[in-house]
Amino acid sequence: MIGYNFMGKAHSNAYRQLPFFFEKSAVPVLKAIAGRNEEEVQKASRKMGWASYETDWRKLIERDDIDVIDIATPNHTHVEMAIAALEAGKHIICEKPLAITLEEAKRMKAAADRSGKVNMLMHNYRFAPAVQFAKQLICEGKLGEIRHIRAVYLNQSMIDPNRPFRWRLSKEIAGYGALGDIGSHIIDLASFLVGDFKKVSGMMETFVKSRPDAGPDGQPNYEKMIEVDVDDTSAFLAKFENGAVGVFEATRYAGGNKNGNRFEINGEKGSIRWDFEHMNELQVYFTDEDELLRGFRTINCTEMKHPYAGNYWPPGHILGYEHTFISLIYELINGVANGLNPQPNFADGVYNQAVMEAVSQSSELGRWVNISDLLGPQ
Amino acid sequence: MIGYNFMGKAHSNAYRQLPFFFEKSAVPVLKAIAGRNEEEVQKASRKMGWASYETDWRKLIERDDIDVIDIATPNHTHVEMAIAALEAGKHIICEKPLAITLEEAKRMKAAADRSGKVNMLMHNYRFAPAVQFAKQLICEGKLGEIRHIRAVYLNQSMIDPNRPFRWRLSKEIAGYGALGDIGSHIIDLASFLVGDFKKVSGMMETFVKSRPDAGPDGQPNYEKMIEVDVDDTSAFLAKFENGAVGVFEATRYAGGNKNGNRFEINGEKGSIRWDFEHMNELQVYFTDEDELLRGFRTINCTEMKHPYAGNYWPPGHILGYEHTFISLIYELINGVANGLNPQPNFADGVYNQAVMEAVSQSSELGRWVNISDLLGPQ
Amino acid sequence: MIGYNFMGKAHSNAYRQLPFFFEKSAVPVLKAIAGRNEEEVQKASRKMGWASYETDWRKLIERDDIDVIDIATPNHTHVEMAIAALEAGKHIICEKPLAITLEEAKRMKAAADRSGKVNMLMHNYRFAPAVQFAKQLICEGKLGEIRHIRAVYLNQSMIDPNRPFRWRLSKEIAGYGALGDIGSHIIDLASFLVGDFKKVSGMMETFVKSRPDAGPDGQPNYEKMIEVDVDDTSAFLAKFENGAVGVFEATRYAGGNKNGNRFEINGEKGSIRWDFEHMNELQVYFTDEDELLRGFRTINCTEMKHPYAGNYWPPGHILGYEHTFISLIYELINGVANGLNPQPNFADGVYNQAVMEAVSQSSELGRWVNISDLLGPQ
Amino acid sequence: MIGYNFMGKAHSNAYRQLPFFFEKSAVPVLKAIAGRNEEEVQKASRKMGWASYETDWRKLIERDDIDVIDIATPNHTHVEMAIAALEAGKHIICEKPLAITLEEAKRMKAAADRSGKVNMLMHNYRFAPAVQFAKQLICEGKLGEIRHIRAVYLNQSMIDPNRPFRWRLSKEIAGYGALGDIGSHIIDLASFLVGDFKKVSGMMETFVKSRPDAGPDGQPNYEKMIEVDVDDTSAFLAKFENGAVGVFEATRYAGGNKNGNRFEINGEKGSIRWDFEHMNELQVYFTDEDELLRGFRTINCTEMKHPYAGNYWPPGHILGYEHTFISLIYELINGVANGLNPQPNFADGVYNQAVMEAVSQSSELGRWVNISDLLGPQ
Repeated sequence: MIGYNFMGKAHSNAYRQLPFFFEKSAVPVLKAIAGRNEEEVQKASRKMGWASYETDWRKLIERDDIDVIDIATPNHTHVEMAIAALEAGKHIICEKPLAITLEEAKRMKAAADRSGKVNMLMHNYRFAPAVQFAKQLICEGKLGEIRHIRAVYLNQSMIDPNRPFRWRLSKEIAGYGALGDIGSHIIDLASFLVGDFKKVSGMMETFVKSRPDAGPDGQPNYEKMIEVDVDDTSAFLAKFENGAVGVFEATRYAGGNKNGNRFEINGEKGSIRWDFEHMNELQVYFTDEDELLRGFRTINCTEMKHPYAGNYWPPGHILGYEHTFISLIYELINGVANGLNPQPNFADGVYNQAVMEAVSQSSELGRWVNISDLLGPQ
Repeated sequence: MIGYNFMGKAHSNAYRQLPFFFEKSAVPVLKAIAGRNEEEVQKASRKMGWASYETDWRKLIERDDIDVIDIATPNHTHVEMAIAALEAGKHIICEKPLAITLEEAKRMKAAADRSGKVNMLMHNYRFAPAVQFAKQLICEGKLGEIRHIRAVYLNQSMIDPNRPFRWRLSKEIAGYGALGDIGSHIIDLASFLVGDFKKVSGMMETFVKSRPDAGPDGQPNYEKMIEVDVDDTSAFLAKFENGAVGVFEATRYAGGNKNGNRFEINGEKGSIRWDFEHMNELQVYFTDEDELLRGFRTINCTEMKHPYAGNYWPPGHILGYEHTFISLIYELINGVANGLNPQPNFADGVYNQAVMEAVSQSSELGRWVNISDLLGPQ
Repeated sequence: MIGYNFMGKAHSNAYRQLPFFFEKSAVPVLKAIAGRNEEEVQKASRKMGWASYETDWRKLIERDDIDVIDIATPNHTHVEMAIAALEAGKHIICEKPLAITLEEAKRMKAAADRSGKVNMLMHNYRFAPAVQFAKQLICEGKLGEIRHIRAVYLNQSMIDPNRPFRWRLSKEIAGYGALGDIGSHIIDLASFLVGDFKKVSGMMETFVKSRPDAGPDGQPNYEKMIEVDVDDTSAFLAKFENGAVGVFEATRYAGGNKNGNRFEINGEKGSIRWDFEHMNELQVYFTDEDELLRGFRTINCTEMKHPYAGNYWPPGHILGYEHTFISLIYELINGVANGLNPQPNFADGVYNQAVMEAVSQSSELGRWVNISDLLGPQ
Repeated sequence: MIGYNFMGKAHSNAYRQLPFFFEKSAVPVLKAIAGRNEEEVQKASRKMGWASYETDWRKLIERDDIDVIDIATPNHTHVEMAIAALEAGKHIICEKPLAITLEEAKRMKAAADRSGKVNMLMHNYRFAPAVQFAKQLICEGKLGEIRHIRAVYLNQSMIDPNRPFRWRLSKEIAGYGALGDIGSHIIDLASFLVGDFKKVSGMMETFVKSRPDAGPDGQPNYEKMIEVDVDDTSAFLAKFENGAVGVFEATRYAGGNKNGNRFEINGEKGSIRWDFEHMNELQVYFTDEDELLRGFRTINCTEMKHPYAGNYWPPGHILGYEHTFISLIYELINGVANGLNPQPNFADGVYNQAVMEAVSQSSELGRWVNISDLLGPQ
């Protein structure tokens, strides 16, 4: 694994916990973790259970005892690492967003296609049992033809204008701001649940145009102000290939929303609602029930037969954030063990990046942008 | 009053109840109701407490014993009735939307300006105590500078494709579909709470392109299919003059939403949420509270000092839909009695119509439309 | 009507609104209101639409032009007024609780039985459409055999120890404290929905033993402290004749609960939940649904066919507190017009009083008390 | 560790995860797991990460390389195992309830006192960050003097009368039914948050008096019906030493409640609400806030400074059931490492058992029972 911060921790935990919860899973061996700061990466390797560490990620890729590379580093590093790893014959899993531009993402996918290796992308929210169950209901036609999706990902991470600059606010490192960081998740959920986007009309805004650099103690240094060149918020309208319409919004300025990843989908025959902050629950409404008994029901998706749920705890013993990663890593390891390339993979990543690119272009041009124009011939 | 259906009932009730709840209010006298069907209008006059009835609305306007005309008829009739009433020196209150085109709305406002009479528009949701309290918090600066509004008005009224055609689906009679019927309410709430719109980018869609005519028994007559030439759903992005951004959606195809009029507003210092289906409650979040104690609080806005609430029942004894009309009518009658022209009035109606026109044009043109370009010199 | 305060207002409104909402109802004529303070009662008569007023309730009962007497006065006055009215051949409706002792209640019922007149009791919460719909589901066997009810009525009216003494804190005037005022409502709901109580084990507590008298300005006069000789809170366990068990609690010291009248009922086949603060909604769960789709559904009980709802507004246009009274008064007037004695009536009132008496005795004796021992031979 | 089923899994996971999440914690070494079925215990040892296994728990206790014994077996085995382990000088942690009778619990505590070893009890729900934060608010006096607690633990585990008999339904093995299994948790929460119980009045009921034995395939064998001799539901009223009153209910027949562990506490100055199914949230109300702004706020207790929360994930990345165990095990290991005896320990277990015994006696005797009468001289 490359990277040892928040995402490094979430990924490491998933590898550790996989064999504990998934009885029949192949068992990953935590060989090595890489990071540039030797002291920190050594500490991380010990704490998170990695057998060794490297201070140069290239070393990791060169090692013969490693089959899978997990990239949990800032966005701008993904392209080089992923292509190198694929060319070295490694399976790969990469944090989202796949890259900082669509062009990079396409090159990564091409490398993956050439390699024939497993290539997954860490859109973990797909793997909440309630979201998987939503997918199942849609696939079974329980909602009928889909008409609407409205999805938001709201947090409040940058609401304080004194909060220092960080890499997620830099176009060079992050690609996009709220759009890439959290918007990419709801684009992924929409692709997964509703299907392909046809075109989008976007709006991006930066409320706080510059922020103080972080001093050595993490405190703001107002003498060094750094320009914020990514979006604080992005919103867009969408039309889907299947005729559905969508409304999307991602922002870091929505006070009171700690992790407000939420959607509602309306179909001809039914509707569903989900909110990550109550991630175990799916709300479901069926249009064709008795008129007097119709209403959204709140389903606690922890029954043994709810997707993935049976691997964890008995009904009603709720799961948290980290379990979405464990189920995703199960698919990765299962893919490696059985020669599959599970979703979401680099093809999904290219798609996701194309939607973001379209939102960004649309925002600049002030008009709708077709996804197919950006994707090119498939 | 002209009109005796759903809105006629809601308005009539408000006049009846005004003196019961508002001790110091001037007392309206329910002189006459007009409608084309004599049998029905006679029945309605008796049931709803009107002293007389007319079968031609022009008669109503000619009567000297009538000071205020209330227009509760389909949208396309508003312009002629309102201008005639104003020219006859009547005060006026009109159902929303004000008209079916911006041009009509402007003519109505001009007539109102010439007359100097009270001219109100029936955007009743403003008058929920919780919404008025939201306005108060915003005006006092409790939320700081506003960054975001996201507002939806979702219902499920047309989800059944077998439901017969009705006037609200005809451009000639209704002007717009979901946009005019329910979207106009959330545009009004946004104007009221956030301020002036600068520009919009819209999307309109008609899912069910034609519907059977209603047979004499109200049943669908599939031999006579009628084209639906208005929007089933409208959504739009918006930028406001004060720098805030907004996301709006109105639809009649959101299964499970009986009257889903909801918004969330995020400011620098705080956030609020409101949902008509729990209309007595306002959720409020303050950014500057103790970090460990921050969270949306649910305020049941029924204290004596919450706006309008003290006129009704003791704290905790909740109000319903109809009370929003009573409070609005209080402002109307107070305006008539004291020579004021309360809001929302025809100027607000023109503004509302301009936003709808901009959404509609934007949807057709595939680009952003400025509100000021449509309003012209003010 | 006798009494013109909060309950006088709620009752008056119901008579006024009955013909507006219930098309086929007989129409009550608001003849006269009685109260001891001439200035106040005159003002009330005007404001609430009563044709005349009296300062002595006995005059009201003597008048030949009055058919129905509505008692909306403090509890200790009910017995004399009701018996006098019944003996004068009037139909009667009385605020709850019926009386301040079981013995009084029995005498009132005896008078009612002798008179053959309609005799109703104002347990208005029964008449929320959602509660009526709950009753319907139970009667149709949709919940199967009932196992559990847990019901609370929580408010915060006396949480401030500086709030002056008022009549509801006096045993002589009120009979009981929280038990009679709000506990009687949840006892009524349980009788209505679950059936007859068999025995109870109660606990009563008075947290603030004395309070200042109210000075002329309503401010506390600490020089005159008055003993509180009723319960601030009452809770009790119950067994029902049908084998169900119940847990009940009423208190005026539950901060944050403005009108927290809530229950959950669990049966073999299903469960329901209701909360007055969201009074239009009933939550319903069915045990026999698909395991993966089971969950409480939130039903907005405003469809035309939900009990009483069709008389008011279209689906999704929510009702408030006052509508429970209008529907109850409909039953009263319908009873008078058609020679019926609708429920809840004085027989229900005696039953309710017996349960309260049993709770009170049980609390004193420290043991279970059978309801049948108090009711005596029926 | 002794036992490898549901609780064995929850405990094992906690040991595994402790060093991952708690950086400064001492690190437990998973030496051995014991169970009677060799094949199963071997499988469990491998899956859950135990270095060795034993088929006789006594062997575990004899081993010198083991410092801490974790008892995760059915209730009736606790007493013998715990006393043997303590006498062998082991630290100990035991599943709840501590024992099947108060007398056993007292003997266990005596052995613990003699040994001077750490002796904890697995009341994990205390360790939800939101519950710990509730404790903190109460200790800081933020709620003022406590008036009320109402707590329920509702599940639906036995609602189907065809579900076969299991050990939790046997008095000989389980001691109590719903009372011991889930009621003991809410008794623990009340002791933790409100303080010492003074006396209780209880009610116990068994709805389904006998159940089929489980056949070899887990299916019901109706030819062998087994008597259920424990409570299906228990409810009780309580008075606390500090003057607060409480209402408690535990049942396995509340359809729709998968893990409905919920409480509300009302104090002079504030109120709190918690619901395990949304375990990351604490609802808090303060009485002394501005009248117009008062309302329950929903606090997502995942800030770095919320108790224990900072060890896991960033704010808004919610925790699940298993994390309550990890935090508890942290206290255990910290106690072992630093010579502390953290709570809840065997003294708390005796207290808990005394309350259950009092509820049971009260239910039989039909009167209140004092806790101090059962505890004897302390």
